[in-house]
Amino acid sequence: MNLLKNKIEDEGVVLSDTVLKVDSFLNHQVDPELMMEIGKEFARRFKDLGITKVLTIESSGIAPGVMAALQLNVPLVFARKRKSLTLSEGVLTSKVYSFTKQEENTISISSKYIGENDRVLLVDDFLANGQAALGLIDLVKQAGANVAGIGIVIEKSFQDGGKLVRETGYRVESLAEIQSLENGKVTFKQEEARV
Amino acid sequence: MNLLKNKIEDEGVVLSDTVLKVDSFLNHQVDPELMMEIGKEFARRFKDLGITKVLTIESSGIAPGVMAALQLNVPLVFARKRKSLTLSEGVLTSKVYSFTKQEENTISISSKYIGENDRVLLVDDFLANGQAALGLIDLVKQAGANVAGIGIVIEKSFQDGGKLVRETGYRVESLAEIQSLENGKVTFKQEEARV
Repeated sequence: MNLLKNKIEDEGVVLSDTVLKVDSFLNHQVDPELMMEIGKEFARRFKDLGITKVLTIESSGIAPGVMAALQLNVPLVFARKRKSLTLSEGVLTSKVYSFTKQEENTISISSKYIGENDRVLLVDDFLANGQAALGLIDLVKQAGANVAGIGIVIEKSFQDGGKLVRETGYRVESLAEIQSLENGKVTFKQEEARV
Repeated sequence: MNLLKNKIEDEGVVLSDTVLKVDSFLNHQVDPELMMEIGKEFARRFKDLGITKVLTIESSGIAPGVMAALQLNVPLVFARKRKSLTLSEGVLTSKVYSFTKQEENTISISSKYIGENDRVLLVDDFLANGQAALGLIDLVKQAGANVAGIGIVIEKSFQDGGKLVRETGYRVESLAEIQSLENGKVTFKQEEARV
């Protein structure tokens, strides 16, 4: 998705060989027009799969997730990272380790909002180590629902999450795939040459 | 806003005289079409104020906030409730006590994304005790920016936040004002009679 790649090139800050900061349009400040285009692109890629819900994790997944849900004309559900006092009965939980924050979170959803008839599109801002995506897959399975696909805004292809998540057999679509952050520079994965 | 009031009447769950659960369309599951209409309504009410940014707090403010920002054609910034490892320099913070969760959070924004030339629309899902809104006002003031107005999805008018926040002199627009949750029933504030 060129609009996204251009934005990453223009505004992304490479903090180290593994950390890309995109706080100016995705993780802290959010570009609503870009989110809308991301939502449209996810909808385009997953439109024929009979999706009934979009599931993401708070907080950075919510903006792209709500736009994908809008375009697919289905509800969004966002998993919470901490328990809420008003979210108690019928709670499904999964443990997710965040390498960025160096802590384990329990993510949770209410079983009321994802059930066995649902075909769920998972959306997240980053795919790096894959722990968040695997946690979301686990929640959908616990709910007895089906994972229809996984939509990622930015995949760090040099980390092992993409491989781990694709090994589950689910379709993963990443709108920008980063091959390397070495030498302070963002290098995107080359598109495969067309024959 | 009748669409919102109807949704609250149909799907809101009154848990006590003070707690209204709207997890089916706002706080956990999110209705993207309703969020879009909420965004349009905020934009309509605040459109002539020269707004340059929308500011909200993770997580439930993000969906209505991003739609308001989309309609006003400005960026959204969401304040974080905890410090992130990749959000370090130039951080402005304010303390916010949550009566629902019975804990104090430090909310923070990067000074990079709100500056002295900004006119900021604050958006939040609920106005109850007013602590979150006062924290956001504090952040905008620390940034040297101006608060252009405060847009609230649901105001619990029987709690003192509305009075506290209006005493600051800023314009507050609440799309649904709840007068009472007594007897397990949502009673909206009556519109003032027209002369």
